[in-house]
Amino acid sequence: MSEKTKRYFLSEEEIPRYWYNILAEMPVKPLPPLNPATREPLKPEDLYPVFAEELCRQELNSSDAWIEIPDEVREKYKYYRSTPLVRAYGLEAALGTPAHIYFKNESVSPMGSHKLNSALAQAYYCRKEGVTNVTTETGAGQWGASMAYAARLFGLEAAVYQVKVSYEQKPYRRSMMQTFGAQVTPSPSMSTRAGKDILTANPHHQGSLGTAISEAIELARTTPGCKYTLGSVLNHVALHQTVIGLEAEKQMALAGEYPDMVIACFGGGSNFGGIAFPFMRHNLKGASSTRFIAAEPASCPKLTCGEFRYDFGDEAGYTPLLPMFTLGHDFTPPNVHAGGLRYHGAGVIVSQLLKDGLMEAVDVEQIESFDAGVLFARSEGIIPAPESCHAIAATIREAAKCRETGEEKVILFCLSGHGLVDMASYDKYLAGDLVNYAYKGR
Amino acid sequence: MSEKTKRYFLSEEEIPRYWYNILAEMPVKPLPPLNPATREPLKPEDLYPVFAEELCRQELNSSDAWIEIPDEVREKYKYYRSTPLVRAYGLEAALGTPAHIYFKNESVSPMGSHKLNSALAQAYYCRKEGVTNVTTETGAGQWGASMAYAARLFGLEAAVYQVKVSYEQKPYRRSMMQTFGAQVTPSPSMSTRAGKDILTANPHHQGSLGTAISEAIELARTTPGCKYTLGSVLNHVALHQTVIGLEAEKQMALAGEYPDMVIACFGGGSNFGGIAFPFMRHNLKGASSTRFIAAEPASCPKLTCGEFRYDFGDEAGYTPLLPMFTLGHDFTPPNVHAGGLRYHGAGVIVSQLLKDGLMEAVDVEQIESFDAGVLFARSEGIIPAPESCHAIAATIREAAKCRETGEEKVILFCLSGHGLVDMASYDKYLAGDLVNYAYKGR
Repeated sequence: MSEKTKRYFLSEEEIPRYWYNILAEMPVKPLPPLNPATREPLKPEDLYPVFAEELCRQELNSSDAWIEIPDEVREKYKYYRSTPLVRAYGLEAALGTPAHIYFKNESVSPMGSHKLNSALAQAYYCRKEGVTNVTTETGAGQWGASMAYAARLFGLEAAVYQVKVSYEQKPYRRSMMQTFGAQVTPSPSMSTRAGKDILTANPHHQGSLGTAISEAIELARTTPGCKYTLGSVLNHVALHQTVIGLEAEKQMALAGEYPDMVIACFGGGSNFGGIAFPFMRHNLKGASSTRFIAAEPASCPKLTCGEFRYDFGDEAGYTPLLPMFTLGHDFTPPNVHAGGLRYHGAGVIVSQLLKDGLMEAVDVEQIESFDAGVLFARSEGIIPAPESCHAIAATIREAAKCRETGEEKVILFCLSGHGLVDMASYDKYLAGDLVNYAYKGR
Repeated sequence: MSEKTKRYFLSEEEIPRYWYNILAEMPVKPLPPLNPATREPLKPEDLYPVFAEELCRQELNSSDAWIEIPDEVREKYKYYRSTPLVRAYGLEAALGTPAHIYFKNESVSPMGSHKLNSALAQAYYCRKEGVTNVTTETGAGQWGASMAYAARLFGLEAAVYQVKVSYEQKPYRRSMMQTFGAQVTPSPSMSTRAGKDILTANPHHQGSLGTAISEAIELARTTPGCKYTLGSVLNHVALHQTVIGLEAEKQMALAGEYPDMVIACFGGGSNFGGIAFPFMRHNLKGASSTRFIAAEPASCPKLTCGEFRYDFGDEAGYTPLLPMFTLGHDFTPPNVHAGGLRYHGAGVIVSQLLKDGLMEAVDVEQIESFDAGVLFARSEGIIPAPESCHAIAATIREAAKCRETGEEKVILFCLSGHGLVDMASYDKYLAGDLVNYAYKGR
């Protein structure tokens, strides 16, 4: 039997020491975020009341391509990084494709997803600046669990607003956050003005990332020593996530290959940017022509059906105005099980890259995503998160094209998380009870 | 900041090529298992109707210390092995102990526990011998999920009897098994004669590993082309699990240390034997004096309160008579959340080793186990399985002794699995609703 390498690791010394800031190297810089009161371009100081100051500076830093990872954060990365780069021999065989499929397995993080990469960084900067309490929002709970853990690690109290439908669908994630000592409140709630307004207008509101963000920001603004943290969408979150792609680049080199395509699921853009941007920098320099494909749910298709314009990042309009692909900040996505993808807009950087044709987007129906997830589970042994199933579905489509053409394309996708805490959604799929949701604007 | 190594890995070439069979090197061999009909020592052929033949031979092989791992099994080990050996700096700091604490992290397996190590081997041998269907029992569902996956991988149909109380407490594990295509039935059930008899005697029976084993064996015996597989207790299961300790031995060498103590939780003995036996072989040769500590639940204390005698491995008396520490095969353990430890007896090898003073046993109350688990989660980031919490509790006791004496002892424990599918039990703990269960015979 041939000795085929299945998984590639890096030593702890090879874990990246810098994050990659694509903002510094984009051929067309994004339009500036605007202060909604003045319509003036945002300055870092405008964000200081809400975020740790260093994160505000990272958010608007368009000059430094490389940002050093603090030693304290890198020490914590060692708890689970490097994550394995895996050759999906099992999936390739199941598909009968000549494509070489690799995935970066972020599901091995102790919280089960890539979210910890940014949570650790945000908690560290908050702590360094004397913050005592952090707030945040969470959808499926992947981000909330990661933030709860990171807060505990750096000695911070955490309050998490969880989208109500996910709070009910995924009680285990609530328990995980509480195990780390966080306070968890379903959103919309009566604990904030924003929540009360939303519930007054619609007492049966199921919640969305937009409502939860509004509530978390309001709590941070009205609580001394408290800052807000965000799990996706913003530039600094994608910045921290580039540790994924930077590791993958070194690991692909160990495998002796380079990706023709890089694929990730898309909610706000952090896992997509995290795996894509480090490879995209070579495209920007003309050194490669990799395709970058974001896979979003057909029920919440801001990239494939949204409008590019200034919009708020949250339901209540507390955030700066961001130039983004959006379905409108008051759009309430249907209750698909991929809770982490139920967000109305796309991050500023990714929106500009899509506008400029430097990346692509596809949409995937809920049932197709679970078809892909179950096939992956049965061939690779890992039950993927419903969010990650979208990346797998897009990968399977491309691998099927290779089967037709006979091309040995190299496909790399991000397995952003596992689905062990989402088994209720697999139950529904196996029972034939899952449905697709049409997007009215299509 | 000093660059302290957190995790140690092996390359795929260094994954062991042989399992270690301690049966061949024990100073006092265990008494033979007996055929209950004839009271004669069991021969491999007596087991052929129930198990794959190669597994029967492994079960009674007391002459070969090293058994080659088939290439096909080793290829699948690469999907998740080597598992990391981790230095628990966070836990050490939380305890203020000078002890060096390491854990072998088996929770990174795709099914979340060590069980896959033997499931893959058993499924492989069944397939090789032309078996088409396998049955098994499962408690918490860790073994059932692993067997469901391994069966799928080697093209076998799987039927799993899950202990009723775990089936109800842990619905996600049922979903995991079903995602891999297995049939899952709560035990005791009306689908077998054994189940009917148990339910007739006690209609509210909550099930135990003993009842589930009886049902699974009966189904295998009465179904052509079908074999039974077992997740612990038997010699061949512990044999397969020695891949844990053999890896850990190489990884401890990378860390430049050797364990003064090896600790694991104890249900039937497979994760304990898996990590302990490879180190114990050096004790047997007088080359080391490591202590080996099995941590069992105080509510099901066969090692610390049981009797050493011949007993059945299952409730209905279908198995051979095994010389073991036992609480009696009709003992129904209380409904502790560590479902995988709710078993009345101990494996034959471990029983003999305990009798001969070559290892120790301690018992841990349920609340102490969760105290330990939450402290571990908050300091190492991994939420442990309720079973593994027992090993952590025993480790914490030993680390506390080191704090008193100032000794820098090296402690290695097996983190047999994560608790992400057991969050309901953490909910109860955090709500203050967990109780300890006294063992009447103490």
